[in-house]
Amino acid sequence: MRYRDLGIKTLRAAPQDAESVNAQLLLRGCFVRQEMAGVYSWLPLGLRVLRKVEAIVREEMNALNSQEVLMPALQPKEYWVQTGRWDTVDILFKVPSQTNKEYALGCSHEEVVTPLVQSLVQSYKDLPRSVYQIQTKFRDELRAKSGILRGREFIMKDMYSFHRTQEDLDTYYTRVLDGYVRVFERCGVSVKVVEASGGMFSEKLSHEFQVLTDAGEDMVLTSPSWKLGQNKEVATLNEGDACPDFPNETLSWSKGVEVGNIFQLGTKYSDAFGMTYTAEDGSKQPVIMGCYGIGVSRLVGTIVEASHDERGIIWPDSVAPFQIHIVSLRGKTEESQQQIQQAAQDLYDELRLQKVEVLWDDREDVSPGEKLADADLIGATTRVLFSEKTMAEGAAEVKQRKQKEATFIKVENLIGKLGL
Amino acid sequence: MRYRDLGIKTLRAAPQDAESVNAQLLLRGCFVRQEMAGVYSWLPLGLRVLRKVEAIVREEMNALNSQEVLMPALQPKEYWVQTGRWDTVDILFKVPSQTNKEYALGCSHEEVVTPLVQSLVQSYKDLPRSVYQIQTKFRDELRAKSGILRGREFIMKDMYSFHRTQEDLDTYYTRVLDGYVRVFERCGVSVKVVEASGGMFSEKLSHEFQVLTDAGEDMVLTSPSWKLGQNKEVATLNEGDACPDFPNETLSWSKGVEVGNIFQLGTKYSDAFGMTYTAEDGSKQPVIMGCYGIGVSRLVGTIVEASHDERGIIWPDSVAPFQIHIVSLRGKTEESQQQIQQAAQDLYDELRLQKVEVLWDDREDVSPGEKLADADLIGATTRVLFSEKTMAEGAAEVKQRKQKEATFIKVENLIGKLGL
Repeated sequence: MRYRDLGIKTLRAAPQDAESVNAQLLLRGCFVRQEMAGVYSWLPLGLRVLRKVEAIVREEMNALNSQEVLMPALQPKEYWVQTGRWDTVDILFKVPSQTNKEYALGCSHEEVVTPLVQSLVQSYKDLPRSVYQIQTKFRDELRAKSGILRGREFIMKDMYSFHRTQEDLDTYYTRVLDGYVRVFERCGVSVKVVEASGGMFSEKLSHEFQVLTDAGEDMVLTSPSWKLGQNKEVATLNEGDACPDFPNETLSWSKGVEVGNIFQLGTKYSDAFGMTYTAEDGSKQPVIMGCYGIGVSRLVGTIVEASHDERGIIWPDSVAPFQIHIVSLRGKTEESQQQIQQAAQDLYDELRLQKVEVLWDDREDVSPGEKLADADLIGATTRVLFSEKTMAEGAAEVKQRKQKEATFIKVENLIGKLGL
Repeated sequence: MRYRDLGIKTLRAAPQDAESVNAQLLLRGCFVRQEMAGVYSWLPLGLRVLRKVEAIVREEMNALNSQEVLMPALQPKEYWVQTGRWDTVDILFKVPSQTNKEYALGCSHEEVVTPLVQSLVQSYKDLPRSVYQIQTKFRDELRAKSGILRGREFIMKDMYSFHRTQEDLDTYYTRVLDGYVRVFERCGVSVKVVEASGGMFSEKLSHEFQVLTDAGEDMVLTSPSWKLGQNKEVATLNEGDACPDFPNETLSWSKGVEVGNIFQLGTKYSDAFGMTYTAEDGSKQPVIMGCYGIGVSRLVGTIVEASHDERGIIWPDSVAPFQIHIVSLRGKTEESQQQIQQAAQDLYDELRLQKVEVLWDDREDVSPGEKLADADLIGATTRVLFSEKTMAEGAAEVKQRKQKEATFIKVENLIGKLGL
C-alpha cells in the first residue's frame, strides 16, 4: 500500500490526556482514534494488527475443537435475572427501549450461551461441546483508563465448554490452558500462567494469563524464568522465597496485565437455566461448564506496552501491520531521483506480487527525518530505505525494527535477502 | 466437517412465532437462534454463510479504494446533539451509565465518521477519501419483524466518502452503484436499482437496491427485465405504463426488500462538524459527503427469501455453507456398510485435502429420510449420496441442490466430475 492511500496523519506528540504508553503510541501512529473515554475507533493500520491477532486466536480455538458462533450484544434482561446477575454486576449497561423493555448490553455471554447450547444438547452423545466467538463487549466502567487496556467497549474472544463430568472438564481445561500459551507466544508476548480465584464468575479453579509490564493493574508473584505465578488472592508463597522451579531465582511482585483468563464454572449457569443431559442410564445430569476469555483488543495494547522503544512500536512479526516498510527519499538530481523511484517501485511491485504486506512511503512533501520517524513509530518488521547514498552503492539500507544496526544490500539481492 | 461436530439439531417444524420464510428455514436449519424479538445468535452454519457474504462485500469495497475501519457501537451523545439527531431519531437506543452520562448505541455512523475523517483531512491533497466498516448496528424498533430482515441488532456494511466537489462525489457515487450491483450479483440475488428520496439521512439523490420478494416491506414499480425501478416517493411512471427500456413489458408494483442504499449527503454532516479542507487557493471549503449501506445480515435473510423451495434453502454457490454435502447411508450387511463408509471417507479426505468445504453426514442413528431432509434444508450446493444402491453400481448419486435430477457417477470419477 502507498503511504498516501493509508490516509493517516501521524502525530509528533500524543494528546495530553493519553497517559498510558499504548494510548500514546497507538494514537500517535494513527492505529486508533479515541472517540471518548474508553471508546476507540480502529483505523486501517490498527485494524490490520487487530485482525492478525484475531486470526491467531481463531486458529488456536478451532484447534481446540471449538466452534465459532456470534452471539448478540443486546441480551434479554430475563436471562440475567435468571442467573441473579442483573442486579449484582455493577458494570452491566442496561438499555431502556421505546417498548418499555430493558436489555442488557453484554459484558459477558454466560447468560446467552447457556440456553443456546442447552437447545443443542439433549443426551450424553451431544457432549462435550465448545463454542467461542470474537465479539464486542461493553462495560459500564466508573473510570476507563490505560488506553485500550480497560475500555467501555472492547473486543473479546470468549469460549464456553460443556461437559458430562468434572474429569472431562479438567482435561479440556488443561488443553485450553496450553492453547492459550500458544496464542500469546504466537502474538509475541511472554505470559505468566497465574493461579487465581474465580472472581465474579465462579468460586472454582481459575487461571489468569499475565503479561508483566508497568502498565498492569494486577500484581503477580513470580520470578524471571518461571512460567507460572500467583496472584494476591491465592498466594501461598512470599516475596523473597526461592522460585519453586528455578531455586536460584527469588520471587518478587510485578505488575501484570491480564490478557486472558480461564474459569471452571461448575454447574452455576447450567443450574440457573436447568441445563441437563440424559446420561447413558437415562437419568438427567447437570452439565459442567468452563469459560475462557482473551481480551483481543487489550492484547493489542499489551503488545505495545511490552514491545516498544522511545521511537515507537516494535510489533512482533506475527502481528505487524506490514512486513516491509519501503522508504524512498528524494534524490537531488532528476537522474538520482529516477533511480531511487525505480528501485523502490520494482521492489514494491515484486513484494506485492509475492503477497508480502508492504507499505511504501513515497511522499514527496515530507522530510527524510519525518519518514524515518514514521517508520519507527508504525513499527513494521523491516524497513528498506532507498536514497542517493544507498543508490550510489546500488543498494538499499535494510533495518529490522527490533535491531539497532542497518545493513546495505545490493538491489539485485534484496528479494532473496529479505528472507520472506 | 463431520455432521456431528457441527453440533446442530435441525427442527422438522419452525417455531410457531416464526412467520417469515427466512426465520422459519434459518431456525429449522440451525443457522441462527432467536434470543428475543429481533435479536439472533449466529450458529456455526449461519456464521459460515454470513462470513462469505461479508468477504464478498469486503472485496468489492476494497476495489472501490475504500479503507476498512471499525468504529464503536457506543457513541458520544455530544456528536448526536451536534447533528441534531439525538432528539429526532426515534429508533436510537440511548444508554445511561453509572457516571450519569448517556451514550448513543449506533444505528448509523455519520456522527462518528465525520469527525474521524475530519481529523485526517486538512488539504485538497487528502481528498477524496472513503472508509467503510462491517459492524453491528442497533435499532430500537417498536416491532421487530420478518426474521433477520428487520432486527434490533444486525450487521451492516456502512461506507462513507468525502469529496472536494459535487462532480467528484457524482463520479464515485456511480462507481459505488456499479460495485453494489456486483456485490448482489456475486451473492446470487437479482436487484432492482431504485431511485429514491433521501429518507432520514438526506434530501439529496439516493438509490435503493431492492430484491423483489413477497417478504418485502417496500413497493417497487418495475418490470421483469428492467434493472431499474421507482419507489412510491419518487415515481414518475404509473402501473401499466410501458417499461422505458423494455417497451414490450408493462410496469407493475412489486414487494421488495431493501438490501442496500446509497445517499448523497451533500454538506449536511460536514457542516454540522465544521469539516472543511484547504483548497489549492488557500480558501476553506466544505467537504461533500456520500454514504452507502448494505444490510449484511439482512442480505443473508433475503437470499433465503429469494432462493428456497418447500424443502429448504437453496444457497447460491458463492455463499453456501458447504460446497459438498456427503450423505452415507447404513448398509444392511457388514460388507456393504464397509464399502459405503470407505467410499465416503475417501471422498471426504480428498475434498478436505483440496480445501473444498465439505460436510459429511455419517450419523448412524438417523434414518435415510432424515439425512436427505437435512441436506435439502441446509442447502449445500451439491449432495453426494453413498448407499447400498449406489455402491452396487460402484457409484455415488450426485445431485445439485438447485436441480431436480440426480445422476450416478462412478466412484473413481467423482473428484473429476464434481467440477470443483
